[in-house]
Amino acid sequence: MPNDFLKAQELLKNISSSQNYYDINEALKTIKRYNEELFLQTIKTFDVTTLANVAIITSEYILEDILEHLSIIKIAKAVEELESDDATDLIKRFEELNPQKTLAILNRLSSEDKEEILRLKNYDENTAGAYMQTEFFTAFINESIEKAIKRYRILKHSGQVDQIFQVYIVDEKGKLCNSINLSDLLLWDFKLSFADIIKNNHEKYKSYYVKDYDDIQKAINMVEDYDLSVLAVINDDGILLGRITYDDIHDLIQENATEQIYNLAGVDADVEEESAFKAAKARAFWLLINLTTSLISANIISLFSGEIEQLVALAILMPIVASMGGNTGSQALAVTVRKLSLNEVDFKDAKKVILRESGISLLNGFTFAIIMSIIAFIWFKTAMLGVVIALSMLINLALAGFVGSFVPLTLKKFKIDPAVGSSVVITAITDGLGFFSFLLLAKMILL
Amino acid sequence: MPNDFLKAQELLKNISSSQNYYDINEALKTIKRYNEELFLQTIKTFDVTTLANVAIITSEYILEDILEHLSIIKIAKAVEELESDDATDLIKRFEELNPQKTLAILNRLSSEDKEEILRLKNYDENTAGAYMQTEFFTAFINESIEKAIKRYRILKHSGQVDQIFQVYIVDEKGKLCNSINLSDLLLWDFKLSFADIIKNNHEKYKSYYVKDYDDIQKAINMVEDYDLSVLAVINDDGILLGRITYDDIHDLIQENATEQIYNLAGVDADVEEESAFKAAKARAFWLLINLTTSLISANIISLFSGEIEQLVALAILMPIVASMGGNTGSQALAVTVRKLSLNEVDFKDAKKVILRESGISLLNGFTFAIIMSIIAFIWFKTAMLGVVIALSMLINLALAGFVGSFVPLTLKKFKIDPAVGSSVVITAITDGLGFFSFLLLAKMILL
Repeated sequence: MPNDFLKAQELLKNISSSQNYYDINEALKTIKRYNEELFLQTIKTFDVTTLANVAIITSEYILEDILEHLSIIKIAKAVEELESDDATDLIKRFEELNPQKTLAILNRLSSEDKEEILRLKNYDENTAGAYMQTEFFTAFINESIEKAIKRYRILKHSGQVDQIFQVYIVDEKGKLCNSINLSDLLLWDFKLSFADIIKNNHEKYKSYYVKDYDDIQKAINMVEDYDLSVLAVINDDGILLGRITYDDIHDLIQENATEQIYNLAGVDADVEEESAFKAAKARAFWLLINLTTSLISANIISLFSGEIEQLVALAILMPIVASMGGNTGSQALAVTVRKLSLNEVDFKDAKKVILRESGISLLNGFTFAIIMSIIAFIWFKTAMLGVVIALSMLINLALAGFVGSFVPLTLKKFKIDPAVGSSVVITAITDGLGFFSFLLLAKMILL
Repeated sequence: MPNDFLKAQELLKNISSSQNYYDINEALKTIKRYNEELFLQTIKTFDVTTLANVAIITSEYILEDILEHLSIIKIAKAVEELESDDATDLIKRFEELNPQKTLAILNRLSSEDKEEILRLKNYDENTAGAYMQTEFFTAFINESIEKAIKRYRILKHSGQVDQIFQVYIVDEKGKLCNSINLSDLLLWDFKLSFADIIKNNHEKYKSYYVKDYDDIQKAINMVEDYDLSVLAVINDDGILLGRITYDDIHDLIQENATEQIYNLAGVDADVEEESAFKAAKARAFWLLINLTTSLISANIISLFSGEIEQLVALAILMPIVASMGGNTGSQALAVTVRKLSLNEVDFKDAKKVILRESGISLLNGFTFAIIMSIIAFIWFKTAMLGVVIALSMLINLALAGFVGSFVPLTLKKFKIDPAVGSSVVITAITDGLGFFSFLLLAKMILL
């Protein structure tokens, strides 16, 4: 048996209660690769805590096995082990695989857990509420630290709260007043009340929060700007509903980056995890748009059929102008999209960004106009062909920088994701303009 | 005066000791936009703590002002306020702006701080050591919790440590043995020794660490996989050297994503913050490579000058095949690069990835071969032209998926960043192949 299989088998044989679930999941995938039967046997012997924590991080194909081979009762018990955000997430993933079985699992949960999950499921995936967990630790302002710590120990030992970073000070209605790092409690005499320690530390112990229907992007920005480990979520009345932790924000940042890279290339991140057939279908959508814009470019070229017949050098050189314009546009696009998503530019900077990008591409337009005119002249021994390609290169590149920044800024203005579709629009413009300017100039100057 | 100016002025007038530095920095930038004199006056009245903490997050143009208008003594005092990683970072940024003045600042530091910064500066920017801070909190295994907490209070009140997440248990040589979350201490009787609480919790209190010369990517992966808030850094002998916190990892993830997006578009992230002229120069490098590959494509076209003269429809249709191939290749490239960087695929999966990407692009190759052959037939009323474009579309798209995944995997194999340059290589292949296959097939079948 190969070494990685033996290692995985060893790890899964002696799962200790505090074994890291990432390692267990990796081992499980290794086992499945070599021995399906042993894999099924292993997931059947998992206790519900292990099952729950592996399920929330594992791949779809293993979730399918869990749904198929384990009892609804056991899965429901596992769901109950999880914190509310993870439980909701898992239920959503189960639902995509098998809605009926998921309903049966939901009906097996305690009515409290079921209601909680259904409530969280209702949040739109762009809102902060969709990412919060509703387990947290609160104390009243007049409570002594000692008393709160006693409660904390009980909550922790009973497993009602897991990783806690802060104690939230709330009033009798549940309104959030202050947030204190748990480790900060070590700095104080435990006989003191929270009121005592907050008194002269209002700024230090102020709460960072978002509202449940706020855009999740706001939460990401706050966590980044203020280096937070945890962020409170409140409703419109200021009542504390939950918290979002840095590791969820972490995952979101990675997901956002992936989405951006995929969108810029015309790939749908959501579908890429699925079958090759579905992925091909989603990608075909963007290819179809690209085909449409290519046909427009082809039509532009066909306007100049006569000129091309007269001077075949035009057909040889025209893709160069288009390609250079496309590349310049992509550069401007990537920079603008990224700066927008990192909140480095705002609409009040829009003019500055467009000017900078146009300036950069104009500079390169000059450079490559000169280089290309020399090459064209040497190649085809026609001075005016050099002039034509230089002019059209300059026009196309300068405009590429302009549209490369103008298009994403405009999309953002209309609240459309600037990474989606920008690429195709910009290539369409630089291709079309590249062919048109080159062929028209050739017609006017050369022929 | 505009509203944002008044708000910024108000905020900077009453800086409380625990005001967030992000807000101060934003206010400072607003002031500078409207009133340079007031801005200079403000940075001059900053106390050294505020100055230090704003300096580490502010933009380059404000750092320039700080270097120019504040005394070396004050700047040195500010550097001494910072944790070692931030101090090192700031010195590095100063050095880029003004090496001489930075040397003077370094010489003003305590010899201890100076040595520390010089030592940290020596780490290569890809190593974990370059991102660690050397301030941390340790305890011995036989110490009582109570005694350690007393020391913690003193360290904290004297400002020697800032945000601390864990107490590191070390042996008498400084070797790292265990890591315990500070908030976990609240769960125990403070009379107990660390040995008592670790005894039955070895797995729970085990240390997650990297070595100082490990690739920083390893640290990022560990923080992500195990949801860590902090990661210890040790040397080859196991001696604890420092720690990396989640917020630094956070920044790294964002930076990596930016770099990837920029690299895919042929933009150098490091230069983009600088003048438009420097940015244009860096981008021109990739444009020059693109020009070279475009010239190769143009040469391929020129081999078929005769055919194009005979049938100008070839010149009209050939950019479509090239453009569709380029798009398909970019899709495969984006997915492969991203999966590689997220550690979702490995070399043992290379064959699977290439097969999947080739499969997807072959599927789309079939689809668009059919669509395009119908369009070509209707447009030019030549059945065989439809056959030619269908065949070359199929060949080009299928190969685009192959090279779009094969190229980045190969670059990664040779430890070259797969996001850098892949794009250009792939477009070169799809363009060249698109023109060549289409024109050659036309020559063989049509003419």
